[in-house]
Amino acid sequence: MEYGLLFGGKSYEHEISIVSAIVLKQVLGTQIAHFIFLDGAHRFYLIAEKDMRSQFFSSGHYKKCPELILKHQGFHTHGLLGSKPINMENLINLIHGGDGEDGKIASFLEFYGIDFIGPRVEACVMSYNKYFTKMLAKEKGINTLPYVFLDKREGSAIKGLSYPLIIKPNRLGSSIGISILKDEKDIEYVLDEVFEFDSQVIIESFKEGVKEYNLAGCMVKKGGDDTESEFIFSVVEEPKKKEFLGFEEKYLDFGRTQKVKKADISSELEMQMRALFKRIYEPLFIGAIIRCDFFVINDEIYLNEINPIPGSLAHYLFEDFSSVLEQVVLPKEVSIPITYHYIEQIQKAK
Amino acid sequence: MEYGLLFGGKSYEHEISIVSAIVLKQVLGTQIAHFIFLDGAHRFYLIAEKDMRSQFFSSGHYKKCPELILKHQGFHTHGLLGSKPINMENLINLIHGGDGEDGKIASFLEFYGIDFIGPRVEACVMSYNKYFTKMLAKEKGINTLPYVFLDKREGSAIKGLSYPLIIKPNRLGSSIGISILKDEKDIEYVLDEVFEFDSQVIIESFKEGVKEYNLAGCMVKKGGDDTESEFIFSVVEEPKKKEFLGFEEKYLDFGRTQKVKKADISSELEMQMRALFKRIYEPLFIGAIIRCDFFVINDEIYLNEINPIPGSLAHYLFEDFSSVLEQVVLPKEVSIPITYHYIEQIQKAK
Repeated sequence: MEYGLLFGGKSYEHEISIVSAIVLKQVLGTQIAHFIFLDGAHRFYLIAEKDMRSQFFSSGHYKKCPELILKHQGFHTHGLLGSKPINMENLINLIHGGDGEDGKIASFLEFYGIDFIGPRVEACVMSYNKYFTKMLAKEKGINTLPYVFLDKREGSAIKGLSYPLIIKPNRLGSSIGISILKDEKDIEYVLDEVFEFDSQVIIESFKEGVKEYNLAGCMVKKGGDDTESEFIFSVVEEPKKKEFLGFEEKYLDFGRTQKVKKADISSELEMQMRALFKRIYEPLFIGAIIRCDFFVINDEIYLNEINPIPGSLAHYLFEDFSSVLEQVVLPKEVSIPITYHYIEQIQKAK
Repeated sequence: MEYGLLFGGKSYEHEISIVSAIVLKQVLGTQIAHFIFLDGAHRFYLIAEKDMRSQFFSSGHYKKCPELILKHQGFHTHGLLGSKPINMENLINLIHGGDGEDGKIASFLEFYGIDFIGPRVEACVMSYNKYFTKMLAKEKGINTLPYVFLDKREGSAIKGLSYPLIIKPNRLGSSIGISILKDEKDIEYVLDEVFEFDSQVIIESFKEGVKEYNLAGCMVKKGGDDTESEFIFSVVEEPKKKEFLGFEEKYLDFGRTQKVKKADISSELEMQMRALFKRIYEPLFIGAIIRCDFFVINDEIYLNEINPIPGSLAHYLFEDFSSVLEQVVLPKEVSIPITYHYIEQIQKAK
């Protein structure tokens, strides 16, 4: 299949997405036919394969590339002789964080009827917003750590949690803006710091030595059939960590192409994680390759977060990533008949 | 203030939105500078004021109007001599149902930095999806009726609810597609019917004679100040109803310009509804004029649904609708610095 790869975005994860795209280019090779970059000014550019180097973006050189317009039937170049579509079979949304994971890009692609791999609008909102993820997990009977949600307008009453606390911006990925609060006296200072990133925060008790496991997967066509589906799961990874996974630790080894070592867990625990993954995935995340990050505390599994567009799509967790991509089930577009029965009724009644 | 009015949309509420826009034109007069129509093929058109008649749309005549493109700095006409922006101070999103209330249009407007009155992406998803509204209410300690959520893929196990049942498409407004199920034996047939409208349904026990009340409102600038805010509430209305409010009952009297009679309830009950409204509104719905529909059963208030873009913005519930519009607080755009520190770090490390 020939893919388009969309990356960048106006977000704190802008450069993460660039690195993520460069890695995916190495993994998928010529399967990626077009590279489309969204810059911080919300403009789309068509990037030549040879220019897929990080410096091309940090230097601003990309601005000399053809600008693209997103409309019906996809992205178009436009010049004096009119506009020309960029042809691809399927677009991969690799914009991490804002724009890509908050529902905006999904909205554009759904609105214009473009086939793409990535979370749809509802899935974005429910996973990008950690508070909503908590609600979703609760509704589905899945454990999450106890938490307090705070909006900037509401002050700082944190009840029922024991120190140290971990304070996260409510709507940001990649560990950006996360702070550890060891002592109550620093609360105003630390909150101010986190509120720089988002007007809402999620606060949990920080537990040291908790086991963390990542599991990626997606729904795929069963035996190439379009009507039946099944799940493909990655290996379970136990991510490296320091006190907690910081931005740099998480991404400086992004460029790895070797496969990950399977975590040393019982097959029973692995089966339990897969069952939880399915419960979260279906039907909300159909069309996306996602990664669920779990904690295990006293043999109980807790959902930490849902990553609806993991770094370079967590390719390194899969045996045969290219075939996973080809089989992803995309949600069917619902046809909506536009009628004027009601208006005709009013007109008759006049 | 000079508004643009956006209406239509690819949804079951397409024609409702047209009628809603025609009514709002009568209410706001020359305050509306531009009428922008989104048709069922997802194309935007600039409609002249004189053509704001329902037949102009049902006949397809609108297709001769100038087509608009939505991009940076708003909607643009485009011709041989380039593109020209449509100037307005503020856009009103009046697209009911799909496109307007599901987050897509909000995404476009947020992405391109256009000032608008209407729910933002997160607010759309949480109110358009009735299942998510239930979660939100539960999280905020607000009563809703007991329910069962069903996805088409999962069959039909309805436990813990007493007949008759009311079965609603999970993501549709305006009472469209709602069925009453009186007897268990008809369940497959009725579910099939509702699944025509959405692959997900919400099922509740249907209670006859329940009192229903509507309350609209929004957050506004306090005394014209930009830093302080307060709430403006409409009168509480007790909507007319038959067995349950059908599509036609709800909209055939849309054209009314007279004010609504205040419901006969105690001021205590009214205060309670206002308090619940605030709890729902803040901070999710900032920027929108919404209507909350409540049930009252044995003096307890239950949230039925949140209507994030009520018909003709529920203007008939307000004393001075035009001044409400002018004062709506819009969410502040967050500035996100795009840096390349991380990429520069990698480059240095090489």
